[in-house]
Amino acid sequence: MALAHGIPENHQRTLVLEQAEAEVVAAIREAGTLSRTDLARQLGYSRSNITSTVQGLLERHIITEVGPGESQGGRRPVMLSLNGKLGYVVGIDLGATSLDMALADFNGHLLERSSEPADVRDAPEKVLGRMTEIALEFLQRRRIQPEQVLGIGVGVPGPVQFSSGLLIAPPLMPRWEAFPIKDFFRDTFPAARVVVDNDVNVMAIGELYAGAGKGIDNFLFIKIGTGIGCGIICKGQIYRGSDGCAGDVGHICIDYNGPVCHCGNVGCLEAMAAGPPIAARAEEAARRGQSEFLAQRLAAKGALTAKDVSEAAATGDQVANQIIKESGRMIGGMLAGLVNFYNPRLILIGGGVSKTGYKLLSAIRQAVLRRSTALSTRDLHIDLSSLGDDAGVVGAIHLALEYVFTVK
Amino acid sequence: MALAHGIPENHQRTLVLEQAEAEVVAAIREAGTLSRTDLARQLGYSRSNITSTVQGLLERHIITEVGPGESQGGRRPVMLSLNGKLGYVVGIDLGATSLDMALADFNGHLLERSSEPADVRDAPEKVLGRMTEIALEFLQRRRIQPEQVLGIGVGVPGPVQFSSGLLIAPPLMPRWEAFPIKDFFRDTFPAARVVVDNDVNVMAIGELYAGAGKGIDNFLFIKIGTGIGCGIICKGQIYRGSDGCAGDVGHICIDYNGPVCHCGNVGCLEAMAAGPPIAARAEEAARRGQSEFLAQRLAAKGALTAKDVSEAAATGDQVANQIIKESGRMIGGMLAGLVNFYNPRLILIGGGVSKTGYKLLSAIRQAVLRRSTALSTRDLHIDLSSLGDDAGVVGAIHLALEYVFTVK
Repeated sequence: MALAHGIPENHQRTLVLEQAEAEVVAAIREAGTLSRTDLARQLGYSRSNITSTVQGLLERHIITEVGPGESQGGRRPVMLSLNGKLGYVVGIDLGATSLDMALADFNGHLLERSSEPADVRDAPEKVLGRMTEIALEFLQRRRIQPEQVLGIGVGVPGPVQFSSGLLIAPPLMPRWEAFPIKDFFRDTFPAARVVVDNDVNVMAIGELYAGAGKGIDNFLFIKIGTGIGCGIICKGQIYRGSDGCAGDVGHICIDYNGPVCHCGNVGCLEAMAAGPPIAARAEEAARRGQSEFLAQRLAAKGALTAKDVSEAAATGDQVANQIIKESGRMIGGMLAGLVNFYNPRLILIGGGVSKTGYKLLSAIRQAVLRRSTALSTRDLHIDLSSLGDDAGVVGAIHLALEYVFTVK
Repeated sequence: MALAHGIPENHQRTLVLEQAEAEVVAAIREAGTLSRTDLARQLGYSRSNITSTVQGLLERHIITEVGPGESQGGRRPVMLSLNGKLGYVVGIDLGATSLDMALADFNGHLLERSSEPADVRDAPEKVLGRMTEIALEFLQRRRIQPEQVLGIGVGVPGPVQFSSGLLIAPPLMPRWEAFPIKDFFRDTFPAARVVVDNDVNVMAIGELYAGAGKGIDNFLFIKIGTGIGCGIICKGQIYRGSDGCAGDVGHICIDYNGPVCHCGNVGCLEAMAAGPPIAARAEEAARRGQSEFLAQRLAAKGALTAKDVSEAAATGDQVANQIIKESGRMIGGMLAGLVNFYNPRLILIGGGVSKTGYKLLSAIRQAVLRRSTALSTRDLHIDLSSLGDDAGVVGAIHLALEYVFTVK
């Protein structure tokens, strides 16, 4: 089948690794460059074992020697890096109203990047067709063949059954229910392994490989937008749970007497603290005449968003500040429980509502510090996403790179 | 130093393994017995790699061949097992008022078992001294030398900094603060590696290796007693978090207007649903004359415990049943949030209060099903601990066995 699609047979074979080879490749990919000594120490293999494994990978052009590194006292060691030109991957971050894409080499270096509006309520064929067009434009500009694309990572704003790559009952994009995304790309990119995941998991992966989460074993990425979700990094890897739905923190109850959520329960965090309730509270304040800024904005637009509240707060509007602080307090209260349970080293806050910035962050921090145990917060950092709008697309590149090799 | 204590040098050397050897030993220990083919498939190593690794372990008497297993179509394969007689381990489960101990061989088979009252408010030297006496009695009965004890696993009812084995600000046992438990055993058991952990982590490990958690990647063990704690199994291993304090769910807030907890916060789960609040509610009901059973018990004893409430419920006492259900509802409400976040396959309920049995369990189940997302509960099981009173001591044996080998 691979040959029928015109892929050189050895190209495919290159990507099948023995267990030890896979560990070496993963370690180099995570660090960027490593010496043989680094590898032996880090993986716990004998020096001779590492030497022969590395030799095999060099002969197959999966890794390359990139010149001497820093000396640790003796001769400067030869550093090893992945062979960036072994193949290419496409990263796709589909938001509710946006489409971000990138092309990268095997070292994760971004070669092309695009961003444009999109609507996930459209038919999947239309949206996926546009993704294909953009990817082909990337390739054309770089004179790369579609057969050289060996991985495609896709983040989508809905619940994904990771093993099949299918969306399951996605509230924002009902037409995508069980649509075979993986199959769609097969004709155009026959050599690519397609991996689909929830957007917030993809953002957490982005921070893990290329952001503030680099080198941190256990951390959480919280996305606050229309909904609220959480990507979980556990022992240096994404944790998806037993059914792939771990991190669904938006439906944790924070008030048994709270409002009804679209999920049918009452008092869900996202029904009380995400973008829509922030906007609703602002509209109410505007109608009551509590904020001139918000009242003018409402009169001009007919409706408010969390972004309006953020802009009002930036002008020093008291009511807007109060609404943002209240939302941060609720999110922080929920996170305090997760900190007690999960004891992470770091929590990163991303998503559209996080752009309200440090007022939200500071309210979240206060609530966590007040409610979590002393030991669990001693070395805990809570910060805004370091990659911002790039978290998703960078994460999609690294998600693809995680799966381009097959372990025998 | 090893020689100075009279330990045969090769005995110590035996316990140092290469990475691949450690993986083979861990896989065999988890499964009980495995063939070379099983090992190659499970670990992803080549057949020749496994053959040579196994040969080395056989020559050092770390594993043994235990005769043919089930045929998979061809010749019946030779099964491999750990060499049970390579050494022995002691498991210690210290509760607030009890001391459970066991002696086991390297296969985890229990050879001796004891249970007696204890008081953790006593000086550590006294309690640890008694543990040493019991362990020496075990050895004498089995004609085993103290030098043959290669591991000691200890579960304690307080927060442990896992790396050092020290208790940090333990509320139930203040005299143990930073007491060097590991050092205490060194004189009597010079060859033993001592591992100390929180009691609920140890119980989760017990269920993982020898109980209902066997073969389950992601599950939670909830202990409900004087406090409420949680042991987290993640991808088949205990998860302790970044500071070793993961699972401290007793101080998750379930009511912002709730009573003040001993930790200083308000509305903590354990201040509202653990043994003491159950007892307090029962005493109040008794004083108000709402339950004849509880009133009589209170008059006879002067105070009530959760056990009294459980016994009242067993006689059909309505008030006692209501108190238990209420506690289950609160615990289940908190667990619903953890199910959304962690998406475990199984939750096991243990600890003294869990002996109130199926009424508590059913209230917990109802609350979780009502409040968690559909996908996360589809294949979720919630059950009582399968090991019951043995979970801690069996877990302590397996905790010790996890650490008897050192990876080079």
